[in-house]
Amino acid sequence: MEAYFDNSATTVVLPQVAELVNHIMTVDYGNPSSMHLKGVQAEKYIRQAREDIAKTLHCKDKEIIFTSGGTESNNMAIIGACMAAKRKGKHIITTSVEHASVKAVMEFLKGFDFEITYLPVDENGVVSAKDVKNAIREDTILVSVMMVNNEVGSVMPIMEIGKTIKSIDESIIFHVDCIQSYGKYSISPNKMNIDMLSVSGHKIHGPKGSGFIYIREKTKVRPIIYGGGQQKNMRSGTENVPGIAGLALASKLAYDNLDSHREKLISLKDYLIDRLKEIEDVRIHSKKGDDGAPHIVNAAFMGVRSEVLLHTLEDKQIYVSAGSACSSNGNKVSGVLTSMGLETNEIDSSIRFSFSPLNSKEEIDYAIEVLKEVLPMLRRFTRR
Amino acid sequence: MEAYFDNSATTVVLPQVAELVNHIMTVDYGNPSSMHLKGVQAEKYIRQAREDIAKTLHCKDKEIIFTSGGTESNNMAIIGACMAAKRKGKHIITTSVEHASVKAVMEFLKGFDFEITYLPVDENGVVSAKDVKNAIREDTILVSVMMVNNEVGSVMPIMEIGKTIKSIDESIIFHVDCIQSYGKYSISPNKMNIDMLSVSGHKIHGPKGSGFIYIREKTKVRPIIYGGGQQKNMRSGTENVPGIAGLALASKLAYDNLDSHREKLISLKDYLIDRLKEIEDVRIHSKKGDDGAPHIVNAAFMGVRSEVLLHTLEDKQIYVSAGSACSSNGNKVSGVLTSMGLETNEIDSSIRFSFSPLNSKEEIDYAIEVLKEVLPMLRRFTRR
Repeated sequence: MEAYFDNSATTVVLPQVAELVNHIMTVDYGNPSSMHLKGVQAEKYIRQAREDIAKTLHCKDKEIIFTSGGTESNNMAIIGACMAAKRKGKHIITTSVEHASVKAVMEFLKGFDFEITYLPVDENGVVSAKDVKNAIREDTILVSVMMVNNEVGSVMPIMEIGKTIKSIDESIIFHVDCIQSYGKYSISPNKMNIDMLSVSGHKIHGPKGSGFIYIREKTKVRPIIYGGGQQKNMRSGTENVPGIAGLALASKLAYDNLDSHREKLISLKDYLIDRLKEIEDVRIHSKKGDDGAPHIVNAAFMGVRSEVLLHTLEDKQIYVSAGSACSSNGNKVSGVLTSMGLETNEIDSSIRFSFSPLNSKEEIDYAIEVLKEVLPMLRRFTRR
Repeated sequence: MEAYFDNSATTVVLPQVAELVNHIMTVDYGNPSSMHLKGVQAEKYIRQAREDIAKTLHCKDKEIIFTSGGTESNNMAIIGACMAAKRKGKHIITTSVEHASVKAVMEFLKGFDFEITYLPVDENGVVSAKDVKNAIREDTILVSVMMVNNEVGSVMPIMEIGKTIKSIDESIIFHVDCIQSYGKYSISPNKMNIDMLSVSGHKIHGPKGSGFIYIREKTKVRPIIYGGGQQKNMRSGTENVPGIAGLALASKLAYDNLDSHREKLISLKDYLIDRLKEIEDVRIHSKKGDDGAPHIVNAAFMGVRSEVLLHTLEDKQIYVSAGSACSSNGNKVSGVLTSMGLETNEIDSSIRFSFSPLNSKEEIDYAIEVLKEVLPMLRRFTRR
């Protein structure tokens, strides 16, 4: 049996999505900027994609900008908005547990004299709206907080943070990295006071190389890529039509089935957490039910190094992650587990299981069986 | 019969390329940053792609950086190199006929106090190495010249320009936009003194959303997108594995068949140019044989506006371009035709035919037949 439990790193592309991508690559392959029929056809896919995605967020079509993925989305949203607002101030608030594509952008902006406040998280990996409130200053121009942490699945109080920010200063831009939450939560930028949010296609069974940013109509963002003026000058370059259409179909499928998918994911998550309790010396870093993201379970198997366990499971065709696996250097010490106050030996033993609706309880049963079989042996080795 | 003569705007994805993309999307879908087998498999595709592409340019594997396409390639190469070299100077040399993704980047850099010299072209759309030589100053840090112009197919003396630059100042970076020439010419950055070159996948029967930059090992470039540190920190973001593998396969196929493809393209081009002479009042802006790019014929059908002819041909399933069609605003007056000294009425009547090895003489015969049929009528309309 194969059990792919690394869906927060990437997901398989759904057959119907792959089919659409394939059709556009080989039949409707026009350049949307071409004036002839093949261009018009291609342009239609993009218009439809924008419409389908806007529906999932209850926003306007023109508020969706397509990018090459989650990393570009975070880069463009944050750099673009800060460069556009820098005359107002140069202070940015974020958390200590953001994805590398937010963290690295903050470090880049420091080089342009922006000042960054990194907020801590509590023992559950959650940032507090009160801390956001206390960090806001006269010169604060942007707050960037992820909705779901990619390593432990902690869920940030986005609604409360949005309300807090806007009650203090309407003009502060609220950016939310929704890469781990889009397709798993009902998200309404209007209701949640979100001005910009980032999404990646390959985390929701869409194609790699696809993503988008929601940018509220009135929010000013400077592009980071220049050229032919595609997407109303916001993101130049021939649109990746197959990728965009595939992303939109994956989004639509995720939101058409949101309730049933959530229910399934939560039942898988809770089932894994329950069954992990059968194994001794396991410490669970993720919350059951609605207290955590529906698809992520982070747990430490004390006395075993996570890489060792990862490779042992791999031999049994069980695929998990040590750390977030979204960085090219998988060995880095986890930021969020450190921020949650965990000891190094616990962090070094931590594994992330991340689900998609395609997973099954049988796969979890299989994983538990394998874990029960291999852990005593691995622990014996380590203790020698 | 259908005749797609807009291959400089975009090309159909080859069946074997689409098949590979599909296989990776649905079977080998891992994240190259994942430590387990599925990640390792994905990483292998990227390593292989880098190797295959490096072979086509006779360069080192590590000199290839994957991007989301030609526009990002031009942006990253030029912005990245200029930001890294700005302490040495802030003068850049380019031509007046570059693609929008170079031109717009130059305008962006002006905002950071870079000074741009735009060189003219002659009546054939060609820039001279002598003009490059005369433009070089103490503070020149970069020269960017396209190899093949996308609108008329003029071929720039890249070898001579490279030699000229380096004989004056080794440290001046030579960037070449090879988006219209890669896959059609044998290109050796070492022999040609090229430090960086840009390529797009969808111009060579590869997937949209794919591209790469060659960056000479010693050339310093700052990234423009930050995050997980993929591609040795040069271009963060989960690699678009299917796109990258598809791009590499398309590249390999183009170079494995370079001679036969060139021969076929030139025979198609020369055949069209010859047959266009059967029609009255046609002015050809492209050169036969090796004097022009093998795949582009730009011609003015005097007395007919290009959009009118374009849409008339479209009704007969013949797809051509008015202007470059690489800009989202297809109606803009052509830069290169203006630079070549053409009158407005001639520019307004110009059409671009661009071929791929998939085209045939029969398609050209069909197009000539249709042109002979519709032009008298269209010209009567215009003259009323």
